[in-house]
Amino acid sequence: MDIEEFRRRGKEAVDIIADYYQSVDNHPPVASVNPGYLQKLIPREMPQTPDSYDDIIADMQSKISPGITHWQSGNFFAWFPGCSSYPSIIGEMFSSMYSVIGFNWLCSPAATELEVAVMDWLGKLLGLDNRFLSIDEHGRKNRGGGIIQGSASEALLLAMIAARERKIQEICSQDNISYHEAISKQYLFVAYVSDQTHSCAEKAANILGVQIRIIPSDNNFRLTKDALVAQISQDKRSYHYPFFVCGTFGTTNTTSIDDLPGLADVAEVEHMWLHIDAAYAGAALACPEFRELAQGIERAHSFDFNLNKWMLVNLDCSAMWIFDSKFLTKALSAGRNILYRDSLEKENPAVRNMHNWQIPFSRRFRALKIWFTLRVYGVVGIQTHIRNQVNMAQWLKTQLILDGRFEIVAPVVFGLVVFRLNEKAASAFGSIDLANSCLYQLIQQDGRVFIVSTMVNNRLALRAAIGSVFSTMENVKLLFDVITESATDAISSHIYN
Amino acid sequence: MDIEEFRRRGKEAVDIIADYYQSVDNHPPVASVNPGYLQKLIPREMPQTPDSYDDIIADMQSKISPGITHWQSGNFFAWFPGCSSYPSIIGEMFSSMYSVIGFNWLCSPAATELEVAVMDWLGKLLGLDNRFLSIDEHGRKNRGGGIIQGSASEALLLAMIAARERKIQEICSQDNISYHEAISKQYLFVAYVSDQTHSCAEKAANILGVQIRIIPSDNNFRLTKDALVAQISQDKRSYHYPFFVCGTFGTTNTTSIDDLPGLADVAEVEHMWLHIDAAYAGAALACPEFRELAQGIERAHSFDFNLNKWMLVNLDCSAMWIFDSKFLTKALSAGRNILYRDSLEKENPAVRNMHNWQIPFSRRFRALKIWFTLRVYGVVGIQTHIRNQVNMAQWLKTQLILDGRFEIVAPVVFGLVVFRLNEKAASAFGSIDLANSCLYQLIQQDGRVFIVSTMVNNRLALRAAIGSVFSTMENVKLLFDVITESATDAISSHIYN
Repeated sequence: MDIEEFRRRGKEAVDIIADYYQSVDNHPPVASVNPGYLQKLIPREMPQTPDSYDDIIADMQSKISPGITHWQSGNFFAWFPGCSSYPSIIGEMFSSMYSVIGFNWLCSPAATELEVAVMDWLGKLLGLDNRFLSIDEHGRKNRGGGIIQGSASEALLLAMIAARERKIQEICSQDNISYHEAISKQYLFVAYVSDQTHSCAEKAANILGVQIRIIPSDNNFRLTKDALVAQISQDKRSYHYPFFVCGTFGTTNTTSIDDLPGLADVAEVEHMWLHIDAAYAGAALACPEFRELAQGIERAHSFDFNLNKWMLVNLDCSAMWIFDSKFLTKALSAGRNILYRDSLEKENPAVRNMHNWQIPFSRRFRALKIWFTLRVYGVVGIQTHIRNQVNMAQWLKTQLILDGRFEIVAPVVFGLVVFRLNEKAASAFGSIDLANSCLYQLIQQDGRVFIVSTMVNNRLALRAAIGSVFSTMENVKLLFDVITESATDAISSHIYN
Repeated sequence: MDIEEFRRRGKEAVDIIADYYQSVDNHPPVASVNPGYLQKLIPREMPQTPDSYDDIIADMQSKISPGITHWQSGNFFAWFPGCSSYPSIIGEMFSSMYSVIGFNWLCSPAATELEVAVMDWLGKLLGLDNRFLSIDEHGRKNRGGGIIQGSASEALLLAMIAARERKIQEICSQDNISYHEAISKQYLFVAYVSDQTHSCAEKAANILGVQIRIIPSDNNFRLTKDALVAQISQDKRSYHYPFFVCGTFGTTNTTSIDDLPGLADVAEVEHMWLHIDAAYAGAALACPEFRELAQGIERAHSFDFNLNKWMLVNLDCSAMWIFDSKFLTKALSAGRNILYRDSLEKENPAVRNMHNWQIPFSRRFRALKIWFTLRVYGVVGIQTHIRNQVNMAQWLKTQLILDGRFEIVAPVVFGLVVFRLNEKAASAFGSIDLANSCLYQLIQQDGRVFIVSTMVNNRLALRAAIGSVFSTMENVKLLFDVITESATDAISSHIYN
């Protein structure tokens, strides 16, 4: 493919993308292929000589597309949204254009400096405490700052690594022992999360080889101060070292919010690192009316949210802030780096060797898609997007309540509505779980919208997450229709069968 | 930005990209801005209301581009190439189009199934042992398979995690102790690498909290069996547990190749995991003439190479194969996964819950850009690309030798030429390092090409990596001219000053 063919094919690709978005709602949002469908359609070996490009495009349309679950459909309400947007797609294109590998400043000064800048933009957009920003109000370098990670899982893992480093250094100086001796106690280190925390916390603890306590959440699905204190007391009696606690701002299951000020109190007393996982709901902080819910975040050691969930930037794009980077960079920097010498950090906030702030060494120029998206939308555009989704979620909640057959099983604060058929509506089934399982199956069979089920308080619940930029009231009304029609079918089929 | 504006702006973006590639060689390959240059050019806060899109594009051209180090320039010979290509860029565009978040099969069956398929294509292209493939010759599921990771660093970390899990299970059953007891010995676990291994190995050991031995390489920059055995014996005498060794196929510094069959012998005897890091040179295995150098790889437990270095696919795209995934998935899967239920893996090789094979939870649809690139090039096209680069490296090596003033400090096997002014040419300087430091500075000042320096056997050396798809003989001739002209200037300035 020469440059003129690229010019032609690239523009054709833009048309294909635009056509896709124009018609994506016409497809069922979830793919309905059988496992192994693709293996039957494509050869077991790559072609010896070049395939025709027309064939590749035709294959994409006829073989790949049927196996796509359309996260960008307005009728996709499963999990959390995988939010994309046109400016983000264009930003990605320019990121591919430069294709720089930005492990240090010299690799492309613009890549590092734009990232530092847009992460400060984002921090201010969310109203984060100034100490999280890279550059303080006088233009000087702060102790930490923001960085783009690939995912909230990596951010949590990195926070845990920094937390361990901090605790090791503390033990070294308190007990006057060597680093090696201190790290030999690592298996006695304990991280604390709730049963509503994302499972990536356990993954992180497994990777480090530390212990983790999954503390039961309260009736509002929150990790509370009392429960945390009780567990820590027990662990300290058996000579364990509490070192890390994760508070969630908007859990995956119900978007509940942990008792963040309470966790911050305990973290302070116990010298633990407090990480806030706001993967989904962090985006809402762009709207000041949500910030009251986020009290305590200003006392955290690290904070993370995904732009690729609810802030219009496509995967991968997780925004992490860390109040003081020294523990993380100490833990991650290898002494020996002959070839890939670090650019001198000095006091210049614009120079940062990003590879010491993340798991991978190389990194893409992801700041570009954030920059495009934030500028094309502006603060007002981002806020409007968030508020629209929240209003639609409130509308859905109200309609479900008015219908009379449903109960809302968790407060609707952001874009997520968790609901089920209530006891009365389910009475013919004998079991409320059976009724809701039946309802869920009928909604999936209908196929016009896609939601997922979950367990809340050990009972089945259905979960509709509104958040795609392409979801309009029309889509949400369709969602409501499918839910209520399926409920009617479920109840009547059970009564008459 | 509505869909019609996206259509227009997207096509405009394709033209900007094509124009960029058409003229990239006209820019100095390395950015010459000062630290902090961008902070002075862009506002400290994001815009309240949308910025004009024309302004954004103008800012990109006038503010971002000057801070770009042009990895895609034909005159970029620094580090290793950050190889991109037109079909890869288009593949990325379609990946942005779908914007699926593929943590399990249902998230988009095509994303998982295409990845399984192209990783098998790639495995066969490289001539990897069948046991690395996902699907065996009878179409049945193998014990492991290939997966796309974000970077070779992550692949090495994952290999180390799997290796630790394997050793823990071994200790549990041998010593009849609990998992918890076994993991309390983790600080006595030892990983082995050479002083030429990428520093990400130390990063991985730091993350796990295990020990690592940096074994001196031999005169050919190789980790040898004898050196490894000697170090292990010493560690075992002090009750340590050898559990992991990394062999490199093509080190970053000189593209040396460790004694892989020797390492495989030791790994077998000591029950250690053998990981092969072929980040750069692995791509050469597409050409059968290089496979003799790779003996021993067939006995490894895991293998990784970066398509984004030398196989025409842009970052991020690291291809990892693992012969048996059970240790990795055991270590990484969290018990509690209410909401993001795994699709049933069963015996179907097409169904795989990718999040248990990697650090992040979410993942992009990266198989698409591999699929586009491999089909557009075909086996023959990939081989031609590799052989062209190798031939150009051989040409450069020969010219430098014929010049008479240079020595080649490491065998030129792939696309990398490591050289320095020889003793005779440097004689006027009194120190060969001083001479080469002067040469290096003049080449950087000249600015027409970009190479980096390194230390080989404790002496300064210069390092030219040929590998961009956009580097032609013309670019390599320019490289040679800049080197020789700078050498003349260095020597004459030193003689006459």
